[in-house]
Amino acid sequence: MKEFTSLGLRYQNNKLEVLDQTLLPGKEEWIHCQSVDEMVDIIYHLKTRGAPLIGVAAAMALALAAENGASQNEILESAKKLNASRPTAVNLMMAMDRLVFKKDESEWTAEKIVQEAERIFDEDVELCQNMGKHGAELIKDGDNILTHCNTGGLATVGIGTALGVIRTAHEQGKKIHVYVDETRPLLQGGRLTTWELDNLGIPYTLICDNMAASLMRAGKIDKVFLGSDRVAKNGDFANKIGTYSVAVNAKEHGVEFYPVAPYTTIDFDCETGEGIPIEERKPHEVRGYKGYIEGENQLITWAPEGCGVFNPAFDVTPVKYVTGWVFDSGVYNQEQLARGEHLK
Amino acid sequence: MKEFTSLGLRYQNNKLEVLDQTLLPGKEEWIHCQSVDEMVDIIYHLKTRGAPLIGVAAAMALALAAENGASQNEILESAKKLNASRPTAVNLMMAMDRLVFKKDESEWTAEKIVQEAERIFDEDVELCQNMGKHGAELIKDGDNILTHCNTGGLATVGIGTALGVIRTAHEQGKKIHVYVDETRPLLQGGRLTTWELDNLGIPYTLICDNMAASLMRAGKIDKVFLGSDRVAKNGDFANKIGTYSVAVNAKEHGVEFYPVAPYTTIDFDCETGEGIPIEERKPHEVRGYKGYIEGENQLITWAPEGCGVFNPAFDVTPVKYVTGWVFDSGVYNQEQLARGEHLK
Repeated sequence: MKEFTSLGLRYQNNKLEVLDQTLLPGKEEWIHCQSVDEMVDIIYHLKTRGAPLIGVAAAMALALAAENGASQNEILESAKKLNASRPTAVNLMMAMDRLVFKKDESEWTAEKIVQEAERIFDEDVELCQNMGKHGAELIKDGDNILTHCNTGGLATVGIGTALGVIRTAHEQGKKIHVYVDETRPLLQGGRLTTWELDNLGIPYTLICDNMAASLMRAGKIDKVFLGSDRVAKNGDFANKIGTYSVAVNAKEHGVEFYPVAPYTTIDFDCETGEGIPIEERKPHEVRGYKGYIEGENQLITWAPEGCGVFNPAFDVTPVKYVTGWVFDSGVYNQEQLARGEHLK
Repeated sequence: MKEFTSLGLRYQNNKLEVLDQTLLPGKEEWIHCQSVDEMVDIIYHLKTRGAPLIGVAAAMALALAAENGASQNEILESAKKLNASRPTAVNLMMAMDRLVFKKDESEWTAEKIVQEAERIFDEDVELCQNMGKHGAELIKDGDNILTHCNTGGLATVGIGTALGVIRTAHEQGKKIHVYVDETRPLLQGGRLTTWELDNLGIPYTLICDNMAASLMRAGKIDKVFLGSDRVAKNGDFANKIGTYSVAVNAKEHGVEFYPVAPYTTIDFDCETGEGIPIEERKPHEVRGYKGYIEGENQLITWAPEGCGVFNPAFDVTPVKYVTGWVFDSGVYNQEQLARGEHLK
């Protein structure tokens, strides 16, 4: 297997390693992953995250097992285990399909599986580059940009989706400032996007989710760039909870609003956002915070024990709030989306 | 001094006691306050909070000192110290004015000071009753109500402002359900409003601030009731950060939006919201959370150390988002507000 490095996953000196994202930004610790079972555990415990990154990480774990002489039966069982480690991750299932389930048994060889895993990696990098290029054209020198959740190198093996756009504009020499929504309840903005922006040297300001509206009213935000977990054919999209509130506020204040995603996020079986199911997560996430604090993983609770909670992981934003959709193939305005040009 | 009890302040068996709100909901601990200096410390460390409650607590501490034989000079010095314990609290300054600064020295007697402190207490209770009565008329059986921050018995010595309205409707037998914004960064919703609603037996669901918009889109919220820290003459108002985002979303979804405040919150020197200064607070509040966790007061941090933060304590909501203003004197619609009827 060829060596590679990315922000959250690397293969060097015959070692496949995963950056433990649950410890960020407090600690940068790479886990040496020596088996499929270990990767299943890493994914299951959210130590790696971001739909594209999970897909690549699982593919690499399987490729390594194949290279180390796994039998065809072991490959099949490993693919099933990896598939089950995060049932809702579409990219994970697509990766396993491409390596095993949609291939003839005769292709379950180390050579073929490694080749396909490397192709998945390379494609993810390239899609990110393309989104970055198209999206960055929308950004002007001096722009203040709001983003939500984490959509960067920690969510993909490339430069990311929305954060990749921001990074590309920065690397083009545009002077930009990023406002980062902390993104309750899991705080991917406060923990991960801040860490990435620090590493990239891009100036930013962390805010609580409920502060973005007053920044918009004060004219301090020019554009919003954020990611998507699933796009309906008409351009409605699901993304991390809180996205819809940002969209409504952007419209009210005339702030440009751009979701960013690769074509692989479009669900061609889904006509509109009404068809996107929304996962509800466990109440302890809203009653407090679970994470790495002061040197250890802790679950802290500030709300009354057992109190009733609503905790949707995502919300759906109708396409009418979208100024332009940034896909890897280009940017599409409302009229182009209505004509389905992004689907071609 | 007459005995009294309220949710967060009481005087019984010659003991003035303050409920330590920094420990809620984990622990209900009353602090026996034996001197003005102790009350200054309690207010300074946010152990008691809520503008009306602070005013009454400070008045009671001074009244007790007067009853215990403080000299006129001691009374003056004590009033100055209490005034300085929370410089932005208008109610605190008003209370000290009423007891000392706007009175002739001849009235700095135990009898007069105790009488005036008791009057301040009784007025706060009565204003809350009146807001509750007027506001509850807006609530129908079956309503789902969103609230933000804490505006109940922990913020006043009465039933509260917006939460007093909700409580009154509940006590009238209306079947209501409350959605509680957790209210980052200080989590007054998640910690205090939940605790009050538990005590009152009013059904509620805790949400992160960024979830309210999708609940509105799903038609699950009928009305918003929340408080105010300062009202301009035209009806624009400042309230806890996040209020403005709720207002914008309420308008977008046709959800009725009602701020609730006593007339004492109107700033007659302030024509519009543009004139209301917004306090910025310390960055550690946004980088993590400071509070009572697992038996001790802790400051936890999940964002990168020293990262840039914007942390306004309040935002301003223009009157155009207000369906009706609930004051102690009644409910005022847009036309009545425009005519200044609420100012009479």
